[in-house]
Amino acid sequence: MAAEAANRRIVLRNHVTGFPKESDMELVATGTAPSRVPEGSAGAVLLKNLYLSCDPYMRSRMSKHEETSYVPDFVVGEAITGYGVGKVVDSSHPGFKAGDYVWGMTGWEDYSLIKDPSKALFVIRHPELPLSYYTGLLGMAGFTAYVGFHEICAPKEGERVFVSAASGAVGQLVGQFAKLMGCYVVGSAGSDDKVKLLTEKFGFDDAFNYKKEKDLNVALKRCFPEGIDVYFENVGGAMLDAVLLNMRVRGRVAACGMISQYNLDLPDPVHNLMAVVAKRLRIEGFIVSDHYGRYREYEETVARYVKEGKIAYVEDVAEGLENSPAALIGLFSGRNVGKQVVVVATE
Amino acid sequence: MAAEAANRRIVLRNHVTGFPKESDMELVATGTAPSRVPEGSAGAVLLKNLYLSCDPYMRSRMSKHEETSYVPDFVVGEAITGYGVGKVVDSSHPGFKAGDYVWGMTGWEDYSLIKDPSKALFVIRHPELPLSYYTGLLGMAGFTAYVGFHEICAPKEGERVFVSAASGAVGQLVGQFAKLMGCYVVGSAGSDDKVKLLTEKFGFDDAFNYKKEKDLNVALKRCFPEGIDVYFENVGGAMLDAVLLNMRVRGRVAACGMISQYNLDLPDPVHNLMAVVAKRLRIEGFIVSDHYGRYREYEETVARYVKEGKIAYVEDVAEGLENSPAALIGLFSGRNVGKQVVVVATE
Ligand SMILES: NC(=O)c1ccc[n+]([C@@H]2O[C@H](COP(=O)([O-])OP(=O)(O)OC[C@H]3O[C@@H](n4cnc5c(N)ncnc54)[C@H](OP(=O)(O)O)[C@@H]3O)[C@@H](O)[C@H]2O)c1
Ligand SMILES: NC(=O)c1ccc[n+]([C@@H]2O[C@H](COP(=O)([O-])OP(=O)(O)OC[C@H]3O[C@@H](n4cnc5c(N)ncnc54)[C@H](OP(=O)(O)O)[C@@H]3O)[C@@H](O)[C@H]2O)c1
Repeated sequence: MAAEAANRRIVLRNHVTGFPKESDMELVATGTAPSRVPEGSAGAVLLKNLYLSCDPYMRSRMSKHEETSYVPDFVVGEAITGYGVGKVVDSSHPGFKAGDYVWGMTGWEDYSLIKDPSKALFVIRHPELPLSYYTGLLGMAGFTAYVGFHEICAPKEGERVFVSAASGAVGQLVGQFAKLMGCYVVGSAGSDDKVKLLTEKFGFDDAFNYKKEKDLNVALKRCFPEGIDVYFENVGGAMLDAVLLNMRVRGRVAACGMISQYNLDLPDPVHNLMAVVAKRLRIEGFIVSDHYGRYREYEETVARYVKEGKIAYVEDVAEGLENSPAALIGLFSGRNVGKQVVVVATE
Repeated sequence: MAAEAANRRIVLRNHVTGFPKESDMELVATGTAPSRVPEGSAGAVLLKNLYLSCDPYMRSRMSKHEETSYVPDFVVGEAITGYGVGKVVDSSHPGFKAGDYVWGMTGWEDYSLIKDPSKALFVIRHPELPLSYYTGLLGMAGFTAYVGFHEICAPKEGERVFVSAASGAVGQLVGQFAKLMGCYVVGSAGSDDKVKLLTEKFGFDDAFNYKKEKDLNVALKRCFPEGIDVYFENVGGAMLDAVLLNMRVRGRVAACGMISQYNLDLPDPVHNLMAVVAKRLRIEGFIVSDHYGRYREYEETVARYVKEGKIAYVEDVAEGLENSPAALIGLFSGRNVGKQVVVVATE
């Protein structure tokens, strides 16, 4: 790295209500990038960011909350932070050395100084695989799919599994993990092309375009005449309400996210919760970072799957830091096909 | 029993929509009661009914459903069935003998022929205790409180527990089981007298009259400044919505019932389900009859509690089969104070 490299960052211009816009964020030049961990930052590492991950939960951080949620709000005028993949340029932490590839929490900027890297970053153990996979399949989204499906859903072979936002980063993997264990899997997505991807590329047994269905309850009854054992919940609202009507006795819902609700002031109504009693359902939420203690096991398992060709994986790659705001807000209109990544630099 | 005893029954006159009325049911004389199990009914027992239990789930059976729920609909013109306590008059089943006291599924009538008694009835092992207790504390409602609290809520000592419909059959016992294991317990109920009962008789730490609160969220924040670990859900709707805002991280909701919804055509909206993800909540429904395999253990434990004075118990006793329709519909206006029982006969 040349000492005179420029640094640029994406900052939040204002807190957001409703749908986020590109103009809520701004690319700012911040002068020359550091080439070393500065004096007085013992234990830090300096990262060159290569790939950034666009994740739906970031929407929540763009709002101002009275009570802090499980992640703090972004600060206006400061760089947005999020998951990403980078290369260690300099390190004053014994667990990281220059040249290491890492994934974890970094800044939306060319170079980031990570003050507490052992809490924020994992060293990548399979740099022979495409590094961008560590923004999704081999990183947070993939591990979310794995934990949410295998632990929260407690699935059994042959069970009937439904996944919403099924072509996205998490959904495409939930569906494939479910197929790998012998389940019947149906997904919903927001375009005919995505639906095709589900059945033709990811091996779902069936799929539907939820935007074209007049009645989600009817669509689910068509795909699951005998009901749903496991619902992997990514969208919330009307879909959850319809799913509740179609769950089987002792069904399980892994509440991973509810993206249809993230831009609403008043969340949509859900009416059918009495099904939880009558059908003895379990609805359980989880946050992937609570489970990172078991990430290394996942990394090995899935790196092997990738090498064996057992997993298909689709990414949607935007080029350049300057395009990251558009990529991020695209999640909320379904612009992304597969995992949304931004390439900041190629080494 | 004299051979000429009359038999009377409460029949459903019509399927019900909305709030049930007394006139949806009718007392009908059906001639002379049998004094023996009739020929051709091998394996049956003849019961004299002593106490009937009024239970909220019976409302669902009064409606006509396209799909059968976990209990079948009542049949118009036939006797209503429900939990009760009776004395065996005659038996052709080896597990029951004349003179046994039993509790379980019987008819709303003076005498009932129970065709498959080993599936429907438990022989009462503590007839030295008030027999009516087997319609509640020592029967279905009590076991519901026990299973729902100890198994579904998975409570820990010192946790903060909220119970709705807290002065009722199930609620009063949930609160006391929670106190016995060292929890902080708050209940809601629909009158100031019931609220007093909660703190003064059942030992709740705090209680409020939900009908007098302008904002349930504010009431819950007042009682639980640090949030709720365990919610025992009896009412649903607006209360559930407010509770979701006040749950602590990794809180649990035992979905036992949602009585506020039973008479509505369109169930009330619940908006705050995103809390399930952000706070990693578990909401789990259960039906007590799935757990009857462990009932005998419960009976012994709680019979001992009663003898040791560890449990307080309040019943609301209506006199006479003819008053059972009013007692049943009273559940939905909160007329009952404590467990609603009907005395049909005193031996
Ligand atoms: N609990 C955790 O720890 C955790 C971790 C990661 C992700 N998550 C959650 O998992 C879910 C999926 O995340 P992801 O990273 O895999 O995102 P993604 O699916 O790759 O991208 C978001 C997708 O959501 C769909 N969507 C957007 N607005 C929608 C709406 N109003 N109704 C229905 N679908 C809508 C769009 O696809 P369509 O074209 O199909 O509409 C869009 O492509 C999100 O809810 C996210 O918050 C949770
Ligand atoms: N899952 C199971 O296996 C199972 C078994 C038994 C019972 N349950 C459920 O447990 C709950 C309690 O049953 P229980 O037998 O103990 O009945 P209960 O509490 O003795 O009687 C019903 C009480 O519900 C309250 N209520 C009525 N309408 C209401 C409304 N709109 N909003 C709020 N509260 C209302 C009234 O008390 P207030 O004066 O406080 O309003 C009434 O006294 C019910 O939901 C029932 O369906 C479930």
